[in-house]
Amino acid sequence: MSAEFRAPATSYLAAPEPPTLADIGKAASRLDGPAVFTPLVESPLLNDRLDCRLLAKAEVLQRTGSFKFRGAFNRLSKLSEDERRLGVVAYSSGNHAQGVAAAARIVGASATIFMPKDAPAMKVLNTRRYGAEVRFYDRATESREEMAEALAHERGAVLVRPYEDPDVIAGQGTVGLEIASDARRLGIRLDAVLVPCGGGGLSAGTALAIAETNPETRVYSVEPQGFDDMARSLAAGARKRIAGGGHSMCDALLMPEPGALTFAVAQGRLAGGLAVGDAATRRAMVTVFADLNLVVEPSGAVALAAVLAEAIERAGRTLCVVLTGGNVDPEIFSEVLASEGWPPA
Amino acid sequence: MSAEFRAPATSYLAAPEPPTLADIGKAASRLDGPAVFTPLVESPLLNDRLDCRLLAKAEVLQRTGSFKFRGAFNRLSKLSEDERRLGVVAYSSGNHAQGVAAAARIVGASATIFMPKDAPAMKVLNTRRYGAEVRFYDRATESREEMAEALAHERGAVLVRPYEDPDVIAGQGTVGLEIASDARRLGIRLDAVLVPCGGGGLSAGTALAIAETNPETRVYSVEPQGFDDMARSLAAGARKRIAGGGHSMCDALLMPEPGALTFAVAQGRLAGGLAVGDAATRRAMVTVFADLNLVVEPSGAVALAAVLAEAIERAGRTLCVVLTGGNVDPEIFSEVLASEGWPPA
Repeated sequence: MSAEFRAPATSYLAAPEPPTLADIGKAASRLDGPAVFTPLVESPLLNDRLDCRLLAKAEVLQRTGSFKFRGAFNRLSKLSEDERRLGVVAYSSGNHAQGVAAAARIVGASATIFMPKDAPAMKVLNTRRYGAEVRFYDRATESREEMAEALAHERGAVLVRPYEDPDVIAGQGTVGLEIASDARRLGIRLDAVLVPCGGGGLSAGTALAIAETNPETRVYSVEPQGFDDMARSLAAGARKRIAGGGHSMCDALLMPEPGALTFAVAQGRLAGGLAVGDAATRRAMVTVFADLNLVVEPSGAVALAAVLAEAIERAGRTLCVVLTGGNVDPEIFSEVLASEGWPPA
Repeated sequence: MSAEFRAPATSYLAAPEPPTLADIGKAASRLDGPAVFTPLVESPLLNDRLDCRLLAKAEVLQRTGSFKFRGAFNRLSKLSEDERRLGVVAYSSGNHAQGVAAAARIVGASATIFMPKDAPAMKVLNTRRYGAEVRFYDRATESREEMAEALAHERGAVLVRPYEDPDVIAGQGTVGLEIASDARRLGIRLDAVLVPCGGGGLSAGTALAIAETNPETRVYSVEPQGFDDMARSLAAGARKRIAGGGHSMCDALLMPEPGALTFAVAQGRLAGGLAVGDAATRRAMVTVFADLNLVVEPSGAVALAAVLAEAIERAGRTLCVVLTGGNVDPEIFSEVLASEGWPPA
C-alpha cells in the first residue's frame, strides 16, 4: 500500500485541550464492561530465544479485534441524545472503522465510514456487519478528511477523528493504564514499552499513562520504514512530514505526519521512535503465530518486529510490546506463514 | 493420521482412586502461578451469525500452548526428591509431551518422551526446547505404552500417563473450575460446555468440576468422526473400542477407547458425546482465526466445529467451547486458510 499524501483539512477552530491521566482514568471506567481488559501474554521458549522477558499486550483480543474500539467507544459514550440521533461520520483504513461501527451500535447511533478502496476485505466486511454504512474513496485522488467533513457538516453529524481527538487519545491510553496495572499486580518492572504508531493516538495515550504511573519505563513508538514521521519528529523536536513514495504492508500505519495534538502529548514522554522493514514484520507475524498462538495483522506486529530486529537492547531486560490488532485477510496471513518458513533460523 | 490400535499395557496393580472436586481445587492452587488462568473470549459478530452466545475458553494461551500443562504440572509437582532425581517418562503425540517437558524443567527433573514419528514438527521441536529427550516410535508396529513402561522400569522413573492418572485428570479439571468461576463472575448461566476428547482426561475433569459447581450445565465430549469411542461408550454405558481404519486431521484425538479411570469419572457426568468431520473442524479453525484472532490446532477446534455443524442446539443459548491447543504446523494452518476461503458462506 502507498501513503496517503493528501493534505489534512484544518479540523479545529480552537486547538483542543490535551488529555490528562485523569481523562484516561475516566475512559477506563467507561470501557469497563464494553471493552476487554486484554491480557499480557508470554512464552518461556520465546523469552529463551530472545534472551529477555517479553510481555505482549494482546489487543488482538479486544472487541473488534483491535485497540481502536477503546478510543471510539470513549468518544461515542459522550454523545448527547441529539448527537446520537444525527449519527457519526468517520474515516479509516479499517480498525478505527470497526471500532466506531461497533461503538455506534452499542450507543444506538448510525455510522457512515469512509474507507479506502484497497482496504482489507475483512475490515470492510466487519465494519458493515456492525451496521455501519461504508463509502469508498481513492487514496491517490481524494481527501478522506474533506469528504468526511463535508458529510458531517451536511448532516450535522459528529466527525469521530481517528487520533486528533482528546477523547480518542484518552481511550487508547487505557492500554497503557492496563499495562501499568498488570505490571504492578505481577510485580514486574518494565524497562520499555513499544507501541505501533500511525497517527500517534495510541503512542500518545500510552506514553501519557506510563509516564505518569511508571516514570522509570521508557516508551517507544514503532513505525514502518518509510513512514517513520513520528521518529523523525521526535528527533527534530517538531512535527516532520515524510517524503512520499514509500511502500509497506502495514495498511494501518501509513500516515505521513503525526497529528498536532498527538505530537504535543507524545513529545517529551516518548523516549524515541523506531522503524522496521516488512521483513521483520513478517517474522514477527510468524513468531506470534508459533509462540503465542495469536493472529496479528502486519501493522499490529511492528513493535515485536523491532524487538526481533534488535532495534532495542534486549539482554536481560523486560520489554512489553503492544499487539495492536489482528484483522488480517486469510490470503495475506497464509502467504506469510507459507513463505517465511518455520522454525525461525 | 491413523489410529493407534496397539493394545494398551495393563498399567495399575490396583485401580487408582478417582479424583474429587477437592483434588481439582488443590490442583488449582498448585497451578496458580505456573499456569495461565485463560480467558473466555467471544465475538459479538460471531454470536450474531450463530444466533447464540458463544464463549471460547482459550487454552491455546496456556503455557506450552495447550491445556496439557495443567495435568502434567499437577502430577510432577507431587514428585518426591528421589523421584525428581530419577526423572520422568511419558508418551504423547505432542501436547502432553510439551506439558510434561515444561513441567519437568520447572520442578528440576529430566524427561524422556516417546512420540510418534509422524508427530507435528512444532510439537517435537518445542518438546526438545523445553529440555526433554524425544524418542520416536512407529504407530503401526510399536506399543508406546510398553516402550515407556520398560524404560521407566529400567530407570526407576515415574511414568506420567496422559490421562489414566487421578492427578492428571484433576489438573485438566481446573479448566472446568475456571469456566465455572468466570461464569459466576460474569453472571452467565451456561447451557452447555463442549470439550474435545481424546483419552478423556479433560472431558472427565471438566465434567466433574462442572457437575459439582454448575449442575444445571450440560457437558459434552466432542471427538473426530471415526474416533468417537467416548460417545459410543457413553451411549452403551460401558467402554467401547472403535473399529479401526478411520482417518482424521486431529492428531491429538486418535485414541480407540476411553481410559478406564476417565470413563468411570465421565460416566453419569457427561450428558453425551458428539462427533464431527474434518470439514467442520477446518471451518472452525478459520472461524477462530477470523473472529477470535486465535490460532487453534485441528484437535483443539472440534468443540467449536460441533457448534458450527449444529450438532447441538444453538438458538438463544449460551454455549462454552474449549479451544484446547494451538500447536499446529504453519504449513497445515496456511493450507486450511488458503483452501477454506473467507468469509464463510
